[in-house]
Amino acid sequence: MPSHNRWVIFSQARARRPSDFKSKSDPNPNSNNQSECPFCVGHEHECAPEIFRVPADSTSDWKIRVIQNLYSALNRELNFPNFPSDSSHCCGDMAVSGFGFHDVVIESPVHPVHLADLSPAQVGDVLLAYKTRIDQLRTFDSIKYVQVFKNHGASAGASMSHSHSQIMALPVVPSAVSARIESMKEFFEQTGKCSLCQVGRDDLLIDESTHFLSIVPFAATFPFEIWIIPRYHSTHFHELDSDKAVDLGGLLKLMLVKMSLQLNNPPFNFMIHTAPLQVNPSQVPSTHWFLQIVPQLSGVGGFEMGTGCYINPVFPEDAAKVLREVFQI
Amino acid sequence: MPSHNRWVIFSQARARRPSDFKSKSDPNPNSNNQSECPFCVGHEHECAPEIFRVPADSTSDWKIRVIQNLYSALNRELNFPNFPSDSSHCCGDMAVSGFGFHDVVIESPVHPVHLADLSPAQVGDVLLAYKTRIDQLRTFDSIKYVQVFKNHGASAGASMSHSHSQIMALPVVPSAVSARIESMKEFFEQTGKCSLCQVGRDDLLIDESTHFLSIVPFAATFPFEIWIIPRYHSTHFHELDSDKAVDLGGLLKLMLVKMSLQLNNPPFNFMIHTAPLQVNPSQVPSTHWFLQIVPQLSGVGGFEMGTGCYINPVFPEDAAKVLREVFQI
Ligand SMILES: Nc1ncnc2c1ncn2[C@@H]1O[C@H](COP(=O)(O)OP(=O)(O)O[C@H]2O[C@H](CO)[C@@H](O)[C@H](O)[C@H]2O)[C@@H](O)[C@H]1O
Ligand SMILES: Nc1ncnc2c1ncn2[C@@H]1O[C@H](COP(=O)(O)OP(=O)(O)O[C@H]2O[C@H](CO)[C@@H](O)[C@H](O)[C@H]2O)[C@@H](O)[C@H]1O
Repeated sequence: MPSHNRWVIFSQARARRPSDFKSKSDPNPNSNNQSECPFCVGHEHECAPEIFRVPADSTSDWKIRVIQNLYSALNRELNFPNFPSDSSHCCGDMAVSGFGFHDVVIESPVHPVHLADLSPAQVGDVLLAYKTRIDQLRTFDSIKYVQVFKNHGASAGASMSHSHSQIMALPVVPSAVSARIESMKEFFEQTGKCSLCQVGRDDLLIDESTHFLSIVPFAATFPFEIWIIPRYHSTHFHELDSDKAVDLGGLLKLMLVKMSLQLNNPPFNFMIHTAPLQVNPSQVPSTHWFLQIVPQLSGVGGFEMGTGCYINPVFPEDAAKVLREVFQI
Repeated sequence: MPSHNRWVIFSQARARRPSDFKSKSDPNPNSNNQSECPFCVGHEHECAPEIFRVPADSTSDWKIRVIQNLYSALNRELNFPNFPSDSSHCCGDMAVSGFGFHDVVIESPVHPVHLADLSPAQVGDVLLAYKTRIDQLRTFDSIKYVQVFKNHGASAGASMSHSHSQIMALPVVPSAVSARIESMKEFFEQTGKCSLCQVGRDDLLIDESTHFLSIVPFAATFPFEIWIIPRYHSTHFHELDSDKAVDLGGLLKLMLVKMSLQLNNPPFNFMIHTAPLQVNPSQVPSTHWFLQIVPQLSGVGGFEMGTGCYINPVFPEDAAKVLREVFQI
């Protein structure tokens, strides 16, 4: 029976993971029991093994910890059965219990401090922790794509309220990623230009920093969706250096604060959309990484699940105006 | 800027629609104010125009009403601007404020009665109301695909708690539909058989009726996802006749009741996956409609949004076992 081009990871380990949200529909994401949070400083022994911490030589004064996910959706053992070793693409009809890595980035040692509360330099350090981990993961030939993402708030899928993000290293390039790379390549072939180097429609611009722009994308799938795009051409997120990380940290923080102020502190996800690790050299000129932020406002219904088409009740230029106009922070 | 193969309908009308759920995260979908529900019998004047009712000649004793959606995502005027009239496919880079129809099916005259509470014949009547409306909609040459779906409960996207479903008639074939049809065609070309006529793995079977099977699909995207599949080869849902509608009504009701008992009355969506209206004759032997039911249990996070890949913590055979084993109703 064809699975209709959907890739599924079956992971029974995931069924056992706890949730420190009282209920998924709990409107208050901070109403959990902090004293039992394994991500808090002093509870390190309740976590899966640490990969590294920032600063590297810190003890109980760590700022960031990158740890294994205790309920990993992927299996670190390379010879895991069921994995079709020759597939470098994620094509239909594949139900994989897959090889890969699944890590958690604890963004702050203390429970009530969220990413948006950190300074630009501290947010930059979180971004550099992603980069450091990706640099480790890309030494594995069998890892084809790394997805960095953040879930904030129960209705954005978070099971833990302590500020964190996740890094998943996959043995295949997901089909949504291939489709994006392909779509960017088509734009390049038609225009001779990189689609994201071209961005600059004033009415969609929210803000800019030295090295980055933040916009509402032209065909925003979700209301108030935000993209942060490097102003320089860059294929992979892991090309980020320390200077640019602080600059991006400032703009990311600003977007999260604006979103929180204008949209009443919504649950949100962010995803880093980068190129596959072994990118085809012909795709380098057209492929440009970006960070997508999606506040969870309206939810998704049967129409979107059935068709893959989205209904967006807010025009991108109106969303950009609302996010631009928030008072200076 | 490419929209990366996502089709988006911008609809400002949708921003104004009310919600009778106190909050999207309200755990109790019945805690709304019934006396103000426009879908209840006696409140017909608060609704957008009626298309038809069942029985056709009923007055205040109607059982089902098919009405226009007051906050339609689509525009009934054919010459609506922005619509690329030559596209019969929904391909990337398209942001459409589109032509089409958007209807609501009120499944019961009274507020507390949900679809699963109706008799098999009454559920069959709801299914026949879908068919009747699709038969009207397919007389329009410009309508390419009809999506029937149901949202039940706030976290499945429902804004109204009164039992209802929706019918959207689209001027394009959504890309997810094309991909499904293509994937079924590939299976047929490889095996000489229709993929859904072949279904019958005992460990994935939940139940069966005279004309239908219910299974957990082999590569279930979501935990406890259920497919109801006709045992006879059928390309379009609207081929359903009255006998088969009662039979399907019984099996659909049974699945909803089992899901409610075993999974603690979860919010859910169902979608009818049928063929495009003007299906290519070469695709008829491989294309088989089915009804997909998805309980909303775990939510979706940044990984799924970023990659289009899903993590399912429940193996399909385990889900089928749980749904099979519920005591006879
Ligand atoms: N008086 C009246 N007369 C006629 N119609 C009336 C009406 N009052 C309300 N309506 C309509 O009734 C419908 C009820 O639909 P649902 O509760 O299934 O979810 P809704 O469409 O709001 O959004 C969910 O489903 C859509 C489609 O999947 C998603 O885009 C969205 O995010 C999700 O919340 C609404 O579409 C609304 O416009
Ligand atoms: N003591 C410990 N040590 C190490 N790790 C620990 C731990 N206790 C918990 N964890 C891990 O911490 C992670 C916290 O992640 P999130 O809160 O962002 O969402 P989660 O991954 O649960 O699921 C959301 O995101 C995923 C991916 O998008 C979706 O599949 C899912 O539906 C959605 O709810 C979990 O993955 C959990 O396994």
